[in-house]
Amino acid sequence: MNQPPRLAVTTGEPAGIGPDLCILADWKHLPAELVLIGDSNVLAQRAAALNSPITFSAYHSTQPPQAGHVVIENVMTQNPVQAGQLDSANADYVLQTLDRAIDGCLSGEFDAMVTCPIQKSIINQAGIAFTGHTEYLQDRTNSEQVVMLLTAPTLRVALATTHLPLSKVADALSTQGLVNILHSLQLGLVKQLGISDPLILVTGLNPHAGEDGHLGSEEIDIIQPAIEQVRSEGMRAEGPLPADTLFTPPFMERADAVLAMYHDQGLPVLKHLGFGHAVNITLGLP
Amino acid sequence: MNQPPRLAVTTGEPAGIGPDLCILADWKHLPAELVLIGDSNVLAQRAAALNSPITFSAYHSTQPPQAGHVVIENVMTQNPVQAGQLDSANADYVLQTLDRAIDGCLSGEFDAMVTCPIQKSIINQAGIAFTGHTEYLQDRTNSEQVVMLLTAPTLRVALATTHLPLSKVADALSTQGLVNILHSLQLGLVKQLGISDPLILVTGLNPHAGEDGHLGSEEIDIIQPAIEQVRSEGMRAEGPLPADTLFTPPFMERADAVLAMYHDQGLPVLKHLGFGHAVNITLGLP
Repeated sequence: MNQPPRLAVTTGEPAGIGPDLCILADWKHLPAELVLIGDSNVLAQRAAALNSPITFSAYHSTQPPQAGHVVIENVMTQNPVQAGQLDSANADYVLQTLDRAIDGCLSGEFDAMVTCPIQKSIINQAGIAFTGHTEYLQDRTNSEQVVMLLTAPTLRVALATTHLPLSKVADALSTQGLVNILHSLQLGLVKQLGISDPLILVTGLNPHAGEDGHLGSEEIDIIQPAIEQVRSEGMRAEGPLPADTLFTPPFMERADAVLAMYHDQGLPVLKHLGFGHAVNITLGLP
Repeated sequence: MNQPPRLAVTTGEPAGIGPDLCILADWKHLPAELVLIGDSNVLAQRAAALNSPITFSAYHSTQPPQAGHVVIENVMTQNPVQAGQLDSANADYVLQTLDRAIDGCLSGEFDAMVTCPIQKSIINQAGIAFTGHTEYLQDRTNSEQVVMLLTAPTLRVALATTHLPLSKVADALSTQGLVNILHSLQLGLVKQLGISDPLILVTGLNPHAGEDGHLGSEEIDIIQPAIEQVRSEGMRAEGPLPADTLFTPPFMERADAVLAMYHDQGLPVLKHLGFGHAVNITLGLP
């Protein structure tokens, strides 16, 4: 008989919403075992504050996974935690929970990992260069090309750039980079989401996708050549399309995914549509 | 007895959708007179192609306006028009229709003007510097501060910058400029839309509104001071808020308008929500 998958769940910023989510989530109907990675004292405190009777037993890697089973792998915070009070002394702890999950995935101990929210700025304030889960996973796994794919019930949006100041977005784009991202996105859609021969719609960078070069040249110089290259390889990709009209029914109904050039171009509609029901999937990891 | 208002309607790009919209629109229930400004031959050709029996009589400025009445002020195209075939020789014509409407508004002949879509790139190809209706109206009326306010049934979005290449957006923002835009937006919401004491939510420029300066400094250096200034004057403005979570129910339900920093940050959700029901209002004109 097949064993259910064993998933690592990092509990995220200890003063944030992550511990509460871990306590309140309706795990028991999931066809997987969940290994919460975080501070068991923090979770116990939050359970008490939320009047939840839940307790988590300790994780033992040698026991076979059971569906609907939730256990905890204890990682201790550096400082005591008060909900809502960020403390840069606990930044290392947040990264330790990620490292534990990553190492377990790479060794085959876990089948996948799921991350609760973190607060990037408090990690930066601790003097650690950190721009996001996506980039951290890429670094720690030596992955050449990762892609942030946000999924809502009726829309999937991938990002060509992620957590960059807006003024640096244009310079961060290249034809080869976009080709690599389109390859990763295509592979992820096929292999991880089970969509055969997906159609990817690609945004422009500038308003109205540059209006034939009159509002910027990146569409002509960078984006269009990337689309032409992957099309010549047989992929179904279209664009560059204006981002303000791409998220309307005639386009959305056809697209398996949208590739947006940057964070605030692609995510507002995704999060509007998927409020409370959106998930970020990192494609391109081992 | 009060006369109904007389509105100028520029028919837009002659090879585009504008003439068709003018023929198919259900004008007769509107409590206003419409003066279509465009080529009467083009409209007649499109009416025939659309199997519409509609004909428009000529506009005479000396006749009093009648509600539901649609008349035409003839402006001839330079070249014959074929629907769907752009011709830069007709760029001057497009601007002539706008000039006729603007002059009529400034003289009091028209109470307002409504514009059908144009194709900016074909005007640029004719060698004319033109970035959009908004900027053209501002220039021709010597208006100091205009604001593009997009309205859908459940959302209003104003833009701090309009038709700029993305790489030029950050440098185009200034605290004083944002203060001026917030003033114009506030005035327009109160005077033109009849909203007393409106709440304006302001986006950041960078992902996550700069994440406390770690993803860009414009929020701290430029946007926050502008918000503080207008708040000190008694305006209700909040932000800078991350654009990807601003368009979710908890924020949208409270906001009378959102001020977004640039085109593709503010318009995707607006056009998603308002597909077929959104209108762009230019605030700050005489």
